[in-house]
Amino acid sequence: MQLLTVGSVAFDAIETPFGKSDKIVGGAGTYISLAASFFNRNQALVSVVGEDFPSDVLDAMVNRGIDIRGIQIPEGGKTFFWAGKYHNDMNSRDTLVTELNVLGTFDPVVPMEYRNAPFLMLGNLSPDVQRKVVEQMAVRPKLIAMDTMNFWMDIALDELHKTLKLVDLLIVNDEEARQLTGEYALKTAAKRIMDLGPRLVIIKKGEHGALLFSADEVFYAPALPLEEVFDPTGAGDTFAGGLMGYLSIQEELSFDSMKKAVIVGSALASFCVEKFGTQRLEELTKNELDDRIKAFYSLSQFELV
Amino acid sequence: MQLLTVGSVAFDAIETPFGKSDKIVGGAGTYISLAASFFNRNQALVSVVGEDFPSDVLDAMVNRGIDIRGIQIPEGGKTFFWAGKYHNDMNSRDTLVTELNVLGTFDPVVPMEYRNAPFLMLGNLSPDVQRKVVEQMAVRPKLIAMDTMNFWMDIALDELHKTLKLVDLLIVNDEEARQLTGEYALKTAAKRIMDLGPRLVIIKKGEHGALLFSADEVFYAPALPLEEVFDPTGAGDTFAGGLMGYLSIQEELSFDSMKKAVIVGSALASFCVEKFGTQRLEELTKNELDDRIKAFYSLSQFELV
Repeated sequence: MQLLTVGSVAFDAIETPFGKSDKIVGGAGTYISLAASFFNRNQALVSVVGEDFPSDVLDAMVNRGIDIRGIQIPEGGKTFFWAGKYHNDMNSRDTLVTELNVLGTFDPVVPMEYRNAPFLMLGNLSPDVQRKVVEQMAVRPKLIAMDTMNFWMDIALDELHKTLKLVDLLIVNDEEARQLTGEYALKTAAKRIMDLGPRLVIIKKGEHGALLFSADEVFYAPALPLEEVFDPTGAGDTFAGGLMGYLSIQEELSFDSMKKAVIVGSALASFCVEKFGTQRLEELTKNELDDRIKAFYSLSQFELV
Repeated sequence: MQLLTVGSVAFDAIETPFGKSDKIVGGAGTYISLAASFFNRNQALVSVVGEDFPSDVLDAMVNRGIDIRGIQIPEGGKTFFWAGKYHNDMNSRDTLVTELNVLGTFDPVVPMEYRNAPFLMLGNLSPDVQRKVVEQMAVRPKLIAMDTMNFWMDIALDELHKTLKLVDLLIVNDEEARQLTGEYALKTAAKRIMDLGPRLVIIKKGEHGALLFSADEVFYAPALPLEEVFDPTGAGDTFAGGLMGYLSIQEELSFDSMKKAVIVGSALASFCVEKFGTQRLEELTKNELDDRIKAFYSLSQFELV
């Protein structure tokens, strides 16, 4: 099954209470594809980088089964750059630098071979860029998932509403769900989001796990109690990538497979935060991932009688 | 199996964004015993009330299988009174009035018949009152659980440490765990608490569920996503009461039975918040409780493959 992702590929400079990274490779598209590659090696990434972007990183993507023909490299362009600093609680951060560069004029083009992909992941980007990708699909995908953030609610709410009408699954965090709907209770917020288009909603709560809602079912995925979060950058994208990678190779898109997909995404995200940037994911083995998924299982399972 | 509880019996006046209660019956001991009575009708409550306390409430306790011979009624005394107002998010509250009255000089006496009770629940009270109860036991109980709060950490930390050495299970919320240990990560906080005495720790996270820790195992109990919390008063005590009531009738005190007990406590607490004070618990049937426990099960269970 093909999986198509649109999302940024970027340079990040990260500061946490534990240290400071160099200018490292990041971006939603990078984390999503990398996480999805643990399950699906038949995927493509639509994105844009500058001529300053290291070709060996693109080669590494290809080696993981990520088709990069949809990654544009405009002549003379510079790669999107973000620098941020996390506060002591790791739940909030300040953006120090945002240089949009080539991302500022990004006009996504979906390679012909992927216009019938049954799984489409819209990473956090301006809602009109996300919509341009959906509109290029020749066949309506089986599942379109999207991420977004407060920033787009602030400056492009109408556009965001238009894109929401086109998708099956919205993946946001608790603050975003509350801002989007004006509802504090997450169960009510999920209902309001479904009124906007998606039939499935995932609300991520960081160290408190994640909630998956359909019209008539709810699933509470736990988070592994960690002693240390080294760098939260990319955890949300890793979650989404693991989820979509797992779902894209399932026979059936049931609520049960969605539940497992949320656990898989949570497990991958729990690795992501252990080191700076994508480092831990790059080292990660399938065995380690399987063991972590089992840890989530024993963390939350109990006998009814 | 006998279950002995020490805890306050009080009058509460509660204000929430949804309304205001009259002066109603509350107190940790009340909620704990009431919740435990869904499982165990062979229990006693050690407490103190004033002569102003309604005898029909005491009669109702007896009808639920709660032995009230340990409830002192000092001549001319007035019942402990607390008034509080919840903020809009229901996670914080202001105390408007605290009149200790008879609770200020409370010297607990455990009835002879209960000095060999195998289960002992120390509701939130000054740590030296809690310790006086433990010291009256003729046989070391199989399980001693205790609740406490920030207030005692502020004014009686040494006493609290002495009492902690005597108990098996500490039940606190996340803020209390952090204040007691100075650790932000709850997994680390739980370890530090175990260094202080208890071999089991439950950290309650409100709408984010609860964590159960032993030396080498962890369980994450979800919270039911609610659309409305009407009145959180007593939810923590109800949790503890349900947990101890359930445990006290199990054949074995294993980590598996502890897990189920946490779910049972969570289910009872989810009812408690639906109405003012003890009202919802008083109306609650065993069938409703069983259905709610099943809802927790389907909320959090998934297939590993």
